[in-house]
Amino acid sequence: MEKLFVIKISGNIIDDDVKLQMFLSSFVAVEGKKILIHGGGKLATKLAAQLGVEQQMIDGRRITDAETLKIVTMVYAGYINKNIVAQLQSRGSNAFGLCGADGNVIQSHKRKHATIDYGFVGDIDVVNTELLKSLLDQNVSVVLAPITHNMEGQLLNTNADTIAQEIAQAISELYEVHLIYSFEKAGVLLDVEDESSVINTLTWDYYQELKTPLQGMGAPKIFAGMIPKLDNAFAALKKGVHRVVIGKAEELQELIQQQSGTSIVHE
Amino acid sequence: MEKLFVIKISGNIIDDDVKLQMFLSSFVAVEGKKILIHGGGKLATKLAAQLGVEQQMIDGRRITDAETLKIVTMVYAGYINKNIVAQLQSRGSNAFGLCGADGNVIQSHKRKHATIDYGFVGDIDVVNTELLKSLLDQNVSVVLAPITHNMEGQLLNTNADTIAQEIAQAISELYEVHLIYSFEKAGVLLDVEDESSVINTLTWDYYQELKTPLQGMGAPKIFAGMIPKLDNAFAALKKGVHRVVIGKAEELQELIQQQSGTSIVHE
Repeated sequence: MEKLFVIKISGNIIDDDVKLQMFLSSFVAVEGKKILIHGGGKLATKLAAQLGVEQQMIDGRRITDAETLKIVTMVYAGYINKNIVAQLQSRGSNAFGLCGADGNVIQSHKRKHATIDYGFVGDIDVVNTELLKSLLDQNVSVVLAPITHNMEGQLLNTNADTIAQEIAQAISELYEVHLIYSFEKAGVLLDVEDESSVINTLTWDYYQELKTPLQGMGAPKIFAGMIPKLDNAFAALKKGVHRVVIGKAEELQELIQQQSGTSIVHE
Repeated sequence: MEKLFVIKISGNIIDDDVKLQMFLSSFVAVEGKKILIHGGGKLATKLAAQLGVEQQMIDGRRITDAETLKIVTMVYAGYINKNIVAQLQSRGSNAFGLCGADGNVIQSHKRKHATIDYGFVGDIDVVNTELLKSLLDQNVSVVLAPITHNMEGQLLNTNADTIAQEIAQAISELYEVHLIYSFEKAGVLLDVEDESSVINTLTWDYYQELKTPLQGMGAPKIFAGMIPKLDNAFAALKKGVHRVVIGKAEELQELIQQQSGTSIVHE
């Protein structure tokens, strides 16, 4: 099976023009087929403030009223997406910027929740892997903004991490998928205070061991904030993804070559 | 040769949600391959006012400084483009929203002008007709926002009428192209005060006659403001476009069936 890199770029890179330029140069240098998924939360928050549209976050998720949906659609699918595409083109790398509505690439439904009204937030139903494959087959990189739609004309704000995972899972029928999450830290740390304590390879058994140490062996070794991310990573592996990598966006090449970050693998 | 409709949608439709919904339903009903080009000037002007970014127009062209480029990229390529695509999807019509940077579909250069600095405004160099054809061949309608790029990473604000014309000309090697400009009026009028005086078919000879009446036969019969549009339409015919139609967006079906508007043809 051919390799495909599904790369989620972290917010701290998008907000920093110098870092973004460096990241895009590294992205272009990655050989083979690739999909880039970006957010842009901080720029959206800034524009909302300029327009006097109050923002409410619950557990890191943006409550998306109609005005906020307009803002995130403009910022994610317009400003950030098209600037990334233009930058990739300038580096000789053909790219196509999409949101989930384009070619019906990601269909979702408005989130239903017992107690919280998230507003125009989408939970993913289907990924159109055929369309993605037809673009990738033309040696075009796909750049995805985290806006989806419900096939009833409604755009929906959708978590970029989740989009990366859902795409990686769905398309693993067609490719050997390497799902790469870039974030601020160097990887999964044994000691959250020590950036040099990166776990290079994390298997399911080792993960269980770290999460629930033997009696009398002290506290769990994995930072609680990482557990949802890691549970998702192992779920992706179960659904066919070959490898999940978590690490620093500035080290994309090294993440791909398994010289940096944490690789989450079957065994 | 297969027919292709290249349709420029007028600003007064984009700004009116009811009219836009009706237009999109008509667009979906058009059989065959089609490309939709939209602007969105009024919404951009409104956002600029909300953000306190002063706008300057010269001869109907927007002087595009860096802040204005950001605004038009957000409004055209983000908000309007993605909402149109989601609406088309909801009507069962697969669509793909692009700007000129996506797949390098329209490459341009920053306008050079002896006396006016237009800022980040693009004049078109090349249209990537192969890419457009590959999308159209998948029975996907293409929805184009009037933002192009220069292959050096710079997005450029580009006139939507010009984009429609340049695409129509370039792609007429591959299709029998019908270029449709929708605007406020019912077509080219013999009497600018009388909406019922629409010229149904305008040939080059008839156009010359209307522009420069015989001596002693009174004033030119064509409203001066239409002359640049008509000169462009005849230029498009010379470059291979099969037919240019000018008429009301509300009558898209009739424009296509030659039952409304003005058809500009070779003879």
